[in-house]
Amino acid sequence: MEWFKAVYHLESTPADIEARARALAIEQSIEMPPSAVRQAEILQDILARVEEIEPAEPGYFRVVLQMAVATTAFDTSGLLNMLFGNCSLQEDVELIDMELPPNLLEAFSGPRYGIAGLRHLLNAYDRPLTCTALKPQGLSPEQLSDLAYTFALGGLDIVKDDHGITNQVYSPFHQRVPAIQKAIQRANLETGGHTLYAPMLAGSPRVLRENLRVARDEGIRVVLVAPMLIGLPVFEELMGGSGMAVLAHPAFAGNRIAPPLFFGKLFRLLGADAVIYPNHGGRFSYSRDTCMSLAQAARAPWGHVLPALPVPAGGMTVERVDEMVGFYGPDTMLLIGGNLLAAGDGVLERTRAFVRRVAASVV
Amino acid sequence: MEWFKAVYHLESTPADIEARARALAIEQSIEMPPSAVRQAEILQDILARVEEIEPAEPGYFRVVLQMAVATTAFDTSGLLNMLFGNCSLQEDVELIDMELPPNLLEAFSGPRYGIAGLRHLLNAYDRPLTCTALKPQGLSPEQLSDLAYTFALGGLDIVKDDHGITNQVYSPFHQRVPAIQKAIQRANLETGGHTLYAPMLAGSPRVLRENLRVARDEGIRVVLVAPMLIGLPVFEELMGGSGMAVLAHPAFAGNRIAPPLFFGKLFRLLGADAVIYPNHGGRFSYSRDTCMSLAQAARAPWGHVLPALPVPAGGMTVERVDEMVGFYGPDTMLLIGGNLLAAGDGVLERTRAFVRRVAASVV
Repeated sequence: MEWFKAVYHLESTPADIEARARALAIEQSIEMPPSAVRQAEILQDILARVEEIEPAEPGYFRVVLQMAVATTAFDTSGLLNMLFGNCSLQEDVELIDMELPPNLLEAFSGPRYGIAGLRHLLNAYDRPLTCTALKPQGLSPEQLSDLAYTFALGGLDIVKDDHGITNQVYSPFHQRVPAIQKAIQRANLETGGHTLYAPMLAGSPRVLRENLRVARDEGIRVVLVAPMLIGLPVFEELMGGSGMAVLAHPAFAGNRIAPPLFFGKLFRLLGADAVIYPNHGGRFSYSRDTCMSLAQAARAPWGHVLPALPVPAGGMTVERVDEMVGFYGPDTMLLIGGNLLAAGDGVLERTRAFVRRVAASVV
Repeated sequence: MEWFKAVYHLESTPADIEARARALAIEQSIEMPPSAVRQAEILQDILARVEEIEPAEPGYFRVVLQMAVATTAFDTSGLLNMLFGNCSLQEDVELIDMELPPNLLEAFSGPRYGIAGLRHLLNAYDRPLTCTALKPQGLSPEQLSDLAYTFALGGLDIVKDDHGITNQVYSPFHQRVPAIQKAIQRANLETGGHTLYAPMLAGSPRVLRENLRVARDEGIRVVLVAPMLIGLPVFEELMGGSGMAVLAHPAFAGNRIAPPLFFGKLFRLLGADAVIYPNHGGRFSYSRDTCMSLAQAARAPWGHVLPALPVPAGGMTVERVDEMVGFYGPDTMLLIGGNLLAAGDGVLERTRAFVRRVAASVV
């Protein structure tokens, strides 16, 4: 029998932690009293094992479980269920890491492009990448196209939809995406640049398939997806077969899975070429440590799984470029949205300033 | 412009709450500084509005936002994103309720069977329903079939797979489901009963479609699905078109959406005929109030949306039947798993005792 590891933080008293860890192992594997199991081989091969318990912050323990690889069924929903199924409903549990043996890791393809592939698509090899978002929601395809044209003139690498822009009646996917793509191609012709447009894909599997076809017909190479909004197995299956580079957005992904694991490992494992996440010091509460661990997890060597590009975002400003590049290094994509738009008539100039600062940030 | 309402608990000081609520409204709608929005109609029609702020527990406020119906794109991922997209990543926010106007509500079908339809399927009209789970994971199709036969002899209404039993190599769906279905049909022939088998469906859209076909070919009428493991838009689209009655399992659904809203309203809205959730006093920490609110939300009148059956579960025992029926009333399905199996050689007798107690619980 092969095993994989799941690492949890459990809130517990020292007196209770052994029983609590054991109860977690039961909950996440056989989900019944071991004394009522009549087959010795299930206790031997299926029941999860408590490998390690060690104190963490006061009142918390780090618990490593070993779980049977076969129980995952080697698919996305099975892996998620074994890692954080029932126990996601228990408020004293946080999932903080996992370790997968080669046969389980190989069940997942990971990013198709990875950092090197994205750089090749964008013809940008030796500097951090730049990205912005088309917003706000409510603009028409024409208004969004005008904005996209300006951003592309400014020389950004990727212009993505705001994640809330999907298929609304005021901007349906099949009208919006061709219009914006053409605006960006026009700017590229004028500047000689390589800006790519990443439209947001959302909806049910049927809608996703239709919209992927529209995007492919328009020559789109990169798409934006919120894996938790569409469902992680759908993300893995549909996006993996799309031929597109995939930026993963964290919307609806708040839970008790540590962000470095969820975005840096799981989203990457399921096919994200780049992972967007809330940077420290913006509108969200991630710490510097969390952000750094996330970026490291996304980029770390991991079997056949290509590295994914960390994309810190959320309330970022052009003024913070040097700090962010200093913190994350060049294999990063900086995403600045509202701060460019806040320049009003000066959007083009602020966009150029963003691009210049990023280019100048690496010696 | 039409609006829907989202209700949040925000952690905040009294001095900060107005600004915090306003920031939430911006984050969840236009996601950029309103001062940088150049179109008056977007501030008028798209920017979410703070309708109400009132103090809740100390340190918390109840905040009602009005959001533009059109921003949801009238689909599952759009609605989820508007309700709890980016703000799911902000630890001071909990989503506790929603109110949808008729045109948005009508975009979703809700349960196909509902409580009355389930009762008709099960030929059980005037008492609480009974359910158990086949477990543990790791059993072969033959072992699971033997157990299912015993449970069906005992006269339960629904025998479902444990939610972790999906498509593992030791019990592949296409072998397990026909074997268990035949065992239950054999028991029904012997007893004259109407026990139904609810197999667990999991995996990517492709796998779900294949397995639904297998289930349909075997005459399966009820399926078990964990909506958060497969993704809520997939749940809505694939299960809604399946013709099956759907039991929704809460695995992987832990987050900061209040359980009465998430299970009692959202799962129901997206098609759950019955919603399984952790009962108070079991292995999970839901309070009596949470459980009662959840059951009430699942059964309350709600436009065209049929009521869903509450299914309290998780560490339940036969001894608690009277208490549970007293608490929830007859429009409930009691799910007892491990406690039946813990009877060892007495599984059949304890199953019969469970069924008898439920029948006797309603005067």
